[in-house]
Amino acid sequence: MDTDLAVTIRQLAEAARAASLRLAVASTQAKNRALLALAETIEASIPALIAANAKDLDAGRSAGLSAALLDRLTLNDSRIRQMAQGVREIVALPDPVGTELERTLRPNGLVIRKLRVPIGVIAIIYESRPNVTIDCAALCLKSGNATILRGGKEAFHSNTALAALIATALASADLPATAVQLVPTTDRAALNTLLKLNELIHCVIPRGGEALIRFVTENSSIPVIKHYKGVCFVYVDRAADLAMAEPLLVNAKVQRPSACNAAEQLLVHRAVAAVALPRLARALQSSRTGGVELRCDSASAAILSAAGLPHTAATAEDYRTEFLDYILAVRVVDSLDEAIATVNRDSSSHSDTIVTADEAAARRFQAEVDSATVYWNASTRFTDGFEFGLGAEIGISTDRLHARGPMGLAELCSYKFVIDGTGQVRG
Amino acid sequence: MDTDLAVTIRQLAEAARAASLRLAVASTQAKNRALLALAETIEASIPALIAANAKDLDAGRSAGLSAALLDRLTLNDSRIRQMAQGVREIVALPDPVGTELERTLRPNGLVIRKLRVPIGVIAIIYESRPNVTIDCAALCLKSGNATILRGGKEAFHSNTALAALIATALASADLPATAVQLVPTTDRAALNTLLKLNELIHCVIPRGGEALIRFVTENSSIPVIKHYKGVCFVYVDRAADLAMAEPLLVNAKVQRPSACNAAEQLLVHRAVAAVALPRLARALQSSRTGGVELRCDSASAAILSAAGLPHTAATAEDYRTEFLDYILAVRVVDSLDEAIATVNRDSSSHSDTIVTADEAAARRFQAEVDSATVYWNASTRFTDGFEFGLGAEIGISTDRLHARGPMGLAELCSYKFVIDGTGQVRG
Repeated sequence: MDTDLAVTIRQLAEAARAASLRLAVASTQAKNRALLALAETIEASIPALIAANAKDLDAGRSAGLSAALLDRLTLNDSRIRQMAQGVREIVALPDPVGTELERTLRPNGLVIRKLRVPIGVIAIIYESRPNVTIDCAALCLKSGNATILRGGKEAFHSNTALAALIATALASADLPATAVQLVPTTDRAALNTLLKLNELIHCVIPRGGEALIRFVTENSSIPVIKHYKGVCFVYVDRAADLAMAEPLLVNAKVQRPSACNAAEQLLVHRAVAAVALPRLARALQSSRTGGVELRCDSASAAILSAAGLPHTAATAEDYRTEFLDYILAVRVVDSLDEAIATVNRDSSSHSDTIVTADEAAARRFQAEVDSATVYWNASTRFTDGFEFGLGAEIGISTDRLHARGPMGLAELCSYKFVIDGTGQVRG
Repeated sequence: MDTDLAVTIRQLAEAARAASLRLAVASTQAKNRALLALAETIEASIPALIAANAKDLDAGRSAGLSAALLDRLTLNDSRIRQMAQGVREIVALPDPVGTELERTLRPNGLVIRKLRVPIGVIAIIYESRPNVTIDCAALCLKSGNATILRGGKEAFHSNTALAALIATALASADLPATAVQLVPTTDRAALNTLLKLNELIHCVIPRGGEALIRFVTENSSIPVIKHYKGVCFVYVDRAADLAMAEPLLVNAKVQRPSACNAAEQLLVHRAVAAVALPRLARALQSSRTGGVELRCDSASAAILSAAGLPHTAATAEDYRTEFLDYILAVRVVDSLDEAIATVNRDSSSHSDTIVTADEAAARRFQAEVDSATVYWNASTRFTDGFEFGLGAEIGISTDRLHARGPMGLAELCSYKFVIDGTGQVRG
């Protein structure tokens, strides 16, 4: 470990901690002024941002990045304007800080108020998309948190250019420029140092693939809020309305298969499988050119074979896989109990749905399925901060502590107890 | 690492996970039946519990445990009855599970309810006091969580006897006996295995000294809720009513110095220091035989010397120390700003208080001091679940994520989103 680097990272975190104390009591007006200045300076800097991004793209091409990764890395006029627009949308959201969550008057006269306050210093560890730099900085700033950004090395020039704009915008609103800082090196040792600074950093949010998230979780002694993956289930109950199930399943699987809230797993009750499965399979096949690959257990395979519909055999691994592709694992279950047990064993506890006209079955499924979001007669694709009405989201938590499911500005906050007395002492 | 032991610990955690799914939907009645049965069986087992405890005490004496540790370890008739009474008090508390925290009707007709649910499986890692076994098991059971208990090796026989009573009580209420399990070995390797089972265990709560808590934090990839220490400040402002400050400071420092919410640090505004410090020092000296050792900065030392009052010189270390003793570090500050900056630099962010008649100063202190509980004109000793009206507490969190400050039954819960639709798909 390079000692100079460790010192640099610690100083950066100390500056973030100091800035967080000022940001915690910054007015909504000051935070919004900084955000509006940021949106304006982003739009005024499009050529410079595209030039910085070109360096990253050149390096990425030399390093042999895939076309998909290069696309994620690319900033163009429209994407840059979208970033600025995203910042303006955060300006329009209510400030979560200071909300009184509870108030208690104790028999001894103490007034205890539980007030929402920023978490403090948040480190965001992310991969190649440079827009995460702006999204996260803006959400953390609005919620009064200081932010340490550690982006992927592929986007280093883009992120550096964006971070400079953020610092300028903060200063223009008389907020500390160190309230948002980019780690100024792509050295992996910097990340390792950062993840141990639990006196200075209060929360780490990794955003990226599962390998990144596991690395952060295993190497951090700071609390982590994370999203592992979405292995989401659609369960078609014996009492399902198949006319509802068809478009719902198609939406959950096909509309955006790369999303974490897309369905990966289908369970069908045995009592209706012979009728339901061929209808559902035909709906999926006709939903797009190329259809959807159905990886089936023996019961569902037999039904689809009898109906002359294409399918393949599932492996045990398929039943717990996040395909992020036009692939669906399919099983037949004997009962609601088996459906619930299967979901609780194999899902990632992200988003699962039951399709049924039987309210009692739905209520049992919703109560007993141990997932962040449990739907009755709706697509799993709704698990999203915007769809939930949060206005924006920093991510979707598959954790149970602090925040679970979509996380908006309120979930970037903690609370404190503010207590007024008249000289009370404890008896 | 002993493979058999690792298998045993994993099986125990798997059983806890399975039990947690049943407990999450257990009725309040069933949970209360188990708790009442537990209180009764504890009272019916006093001789057996004292006999088991005697084995621990014998081993402790042989191992040379201090008198204080042996006292913490001791179970007697009155302490055992107190344990049972504590369980009955938890029966009387409202069940936190199922509370609707928020409800949103979306424009597309989706009804999104945010419901309080148990966290899942909680591991409690604790040291020698056997009553923690019953307190934690009862709180976790009432809040619907399965519990894995890992007590200190000094209390192993006592804890084993108590855990057997809990299993019997659970079974008598038709709840899974594996809902509360004690790790059946004192081997340190078992703890290391446990702390890595993040697929099965959702939360770790270490209760004990700072070394234990640091070990757990550094070795766990499971989210930890913890309480490090309480370095609590009393700030006597220039506008303080000294007749209020005297008993308040005495209470905060002297009433129970071993408590985490006892004051360790005194700051006095320079404008009133020459008058206030001698009065406060005399009040502390006369509060008990032996008085309170005042470890002073040069300004406060000069004032006390002039008044002929005893004191010693503080070291830099004293200003951040949790003495847990009749010792108080004392400093003079030039301003409210300096008081706030000093607290934010040196306190443990647990509980700090300002004594002042100036409401504007109080509000600034409460807003800017970054601690879990910030008092105006009240003793820091009130930071406690019972004093806050929570009815019971599992501990006091010095973390910012999930729970901060005193934690009761609600803080042992997470939430889930339960969403009702009529076939909605995402556009």
